[in-house]
Amino acid sequence: MPLKVAILGFGTVGASAARILTERKTPGLALTHVYNRNVARKRVDWLPSVTWTEDIETIFASDADVVIELMGGLDPAEGWVRRALESGKSVVTANKKLIALRGPELESIARKNNCHLLYGAAVAGGIPVIPGLRHGLAGDKITRIEGILNGTSNFILSRMEHGAEYADELAEAQRRGYAEADPTEDVDGFDARSKLVILSRLALGADVAPEEITCQSIRQVGAIDFAYAKDLGCTIRPVARADARNGNLVALVAPMLVPFSSPLAWSRGTENMVLMTGQYGGDVVFSGHGAGGNPTAVAVVSDLCALAAGTAPRAIEAAPAAVTGEFELRHYVRFVVKDRPGIVAEIAGAMAAQGINIDSLFQRSGFGKDSLPFVVTTEPCVNSRVKLALAKMQRADWQAQPPLDLQVLEPDPAVVA
Amino acid sequence: MPLKVAILGFGTVGASAARILTERKTPGLALTHVYNRNVARKRVDWLPSVTWTEDIETIFASDADVVIELMGGLDPAEGWVRRALESGKSVVTANKKLIALRGPELESIARKNNCHLLYGAAVAGGIPVIPGLRHGLAGDKITRIEGILNGTSNFILSRMEHGAEYADELAEAQRRGYAEADPTEDVDGFDARSKLVILSRLALGADVAPEEITCQSIRQVGAIDFAYAKDLGCTIRPVARADARNGNLVALVAPMLVPFSSPLAWSRGTENMVLMTGQYGGDVVFSGHGAGGNPTAVAVVSDLCALAAGTAPRAIEAAPAAVTGEFELRHYVRFVVKDRPGIVAEIAGAMAAQGINIDSLFQRSGFGKDSLPFVVTTEPCVNSRVKLALAKMQRADWQAQPPLDLQVLEPDPAVVA
Repeated sequence: MPLKVAILGFGTVGASAARILTERKTPGLALTHVYNRNVARKRVDWLPSVTWTEDIETIFASDADVVIELMGGLDPAEGWVRRALESGKSVVTANKKLIALRGPELESIARKNNCHLLYGAAVAGGIPVIPGLRHGLAGDKITRIEGILNGTSNFILSRMEHGAEYADELAEAQRRGYAEADPTEDVDGFDARSKLVILSRLALGADVAPEEITCQSIRQVGAIDFAYAKDLGCTIRPVARADARNGNLVALVAPMLVPFSSPLAWSRGTENMVLMTGQYGGDVVFSGHGAGGNPTAVAVVSDLCALAAGTAPRAIEAAPAAVTGEFELRHYVRFVVKDRPGIVAEIAGAMAAQGINIDSLFQRSGFGKDSLPFVVTTEPCVNSRVKLALAKMQRADWQAQPPLDLQVLEPDPAVVA
Repeated sequence: MPLKVAILGFGTVGASAARILTERKTPGLALTHVYNRNVARKRVDWLPSVTWTEDIETIFASDADVVIELMGGLDPAEGWVRRALESGKSVVTANKKLIALRGPELESIARKNNCHLLYGAAVAGGIPVIPGLRHGLAGDKITRIEGILNGTSNFILSRMEHGAEYADELAEAQRRGYAEADPTEDVDGFDARSKLVILSRLALGADVAPEEITCQSIRQVGAIDFAYAKDLGCTIRPVARADARNGNLVALVAPMLVPFSSPLAWSRGTENMVLMTGQYGGDVVFSGHGAGGNPTAVAVVSDLCALAAGTAPRAIEAAPAAVTGEFELRHYVRFVVKDRPGIVAEIAGAMAAQGINIDSLFQRSGFGKDSLPFVVTTEPCVNSRVKLALAKMQRADWQAQPPLDLQVLEPDPAVVA
């Protein structure tokens, strides 16, 4: 008897999943129901033996064994996933927000009702990060996750590498349909943060709430920062990073300087990339298309295949963990100053007062005295010290605009060697 | 009741696996037996509750549920794996040669005896390519595998990029313990071929014998070829590649020119990398440490975890397939000539006779007239045509040494866009 599958939400991903299930004739799986509002607008002729419904109760009352939730957001998705699991129907979802906020609770409902909650599509779409982690790295002890988890902000930053400004590349991303009219979720890091929360549970066993992780927007990064980064052998990428530290978590989502020798610098356009560091196996890199209808649908169908084959993993137990953003990394601070004597002394003094060693100070020529970009790099130090030093200088009359503080990732030791 | 585990072969990987099992206290798994010749030399004090034996019959007579085979080679590994499976003991192995040659037969023995044969460690060690493929890409239809599957030859070629000759870097690889005294298995492609055979079964459903796939050695690649490759925007890497084509396979193991924009060019040193192309999900890249005691042991322990959790996948059915090496790719042919008039005409004539379009002819200055490296690049054409054209010129008196014919991979369209 094949598993009977109901799709909730027949948008791009839902239609792709249905198409894969139909074209591949996946053994052990039969698509039986599709729920969507306004079915008349959605119905397709290549799914002849499927029940289409606008009434969610039809799904709950049906004999569907598995529900694919592709509505997104919390309401009504959360209630429907909960009801499905409580009635013993397994759930496959691509809903990162739901899993980041309610994952552990929903997994415990699944466990009690002897069914599964799978969400391989919630992180990095078509890249098998979650299955690779759960099945292929189960034998390691992962100590760090570092990745580019948002394709839209990676598209914008990787194109700014060639001299464009943020606003132009945001507009291009919107024109291509990669960014929403309100791009907040993507460019301010919230989308990547949900994914980092999910990976931190699975890979590091640390259960934290999304709002505990600080996000820094990519909006303040300018073309000038790419020019300066290049002088330092780096580019800039939207990085999500979490370190396990004595049962707790150090985690941040922020644009960071990435050495050209780092795998993260290879990632271009909307690609996603995840680098996991294991105590035994060292670094493993996964990359590919993190979003889009077909890649996400591949992850959904792969989860369905695991249910059909009886190889779906049990929920991983994660323990509540405290979070700080205190990585010990080099910093790149770009000031824009109204030039006058004494600025360097003031910056150096504020840094020294926080015990921060300055590594270099430099500026490119060709800018006016009223609005001069000027860069300070520091030796590795925790985030909060730099923030305190910058707060001290906040009201200085020589600051033409607020400074941009970015962390600098270490070069990849494997590539250096 | 934890699964009782016996290790056959307590070398680097066996000791690493034992160490991970001990240090991590992996739930559901208990190491109970170690078989090795000359136990006195191998015994360690950090495994107090393990039975050490030099007699394989002790293992077969024991209550061990799982046997980890880390002997390598075919004899006695094949017979012992067969006996273990026939007695209902599951087997986890890192033995690529055994799986490439006998995998389907051994899997059918496992199926009949209601146990499992797992070999996540047989391809790319610590990189979860096999679990990622079986669990995370099950929802896609993979059409191509392209990878760097041998760390030793990648070490040699990626270092030659900086101007060294093959012999020097082979010596360095031997000094570091990456290459054997007889490096044939690595540098002539046989090791990578075993892995390509295994991946072709799992990803493309095509069952072929290793000896059906042509291997080209990296021994003929010189420092001069890296210089010319650079002029073409490329480097050179040891590539294993297989395309599914109408139920059959196009496959080769050979050094190839790789555009700098391709993920394969990022792979340095002993790193491995696998790129899989799916009909739905596009390209997915896996990379990391393909060999070494700890990374390989991570793959072994991950397979054990799957057995303990009951999530081990069933064998994939692959159908016998015919193999050719006929990729349609651009070619780079480097001649070394004794310069005289008419050579270009002769080469152009031999190529034209095979219907091959020449793309460019060029040479670097600074070489003597007696031994002048001279490069021809062609438009995409099948391998056999270039071989026929070269055979025609084989006895030409102007050839100072045999020409080197390398294929040129396409640039990555994602990076170009």
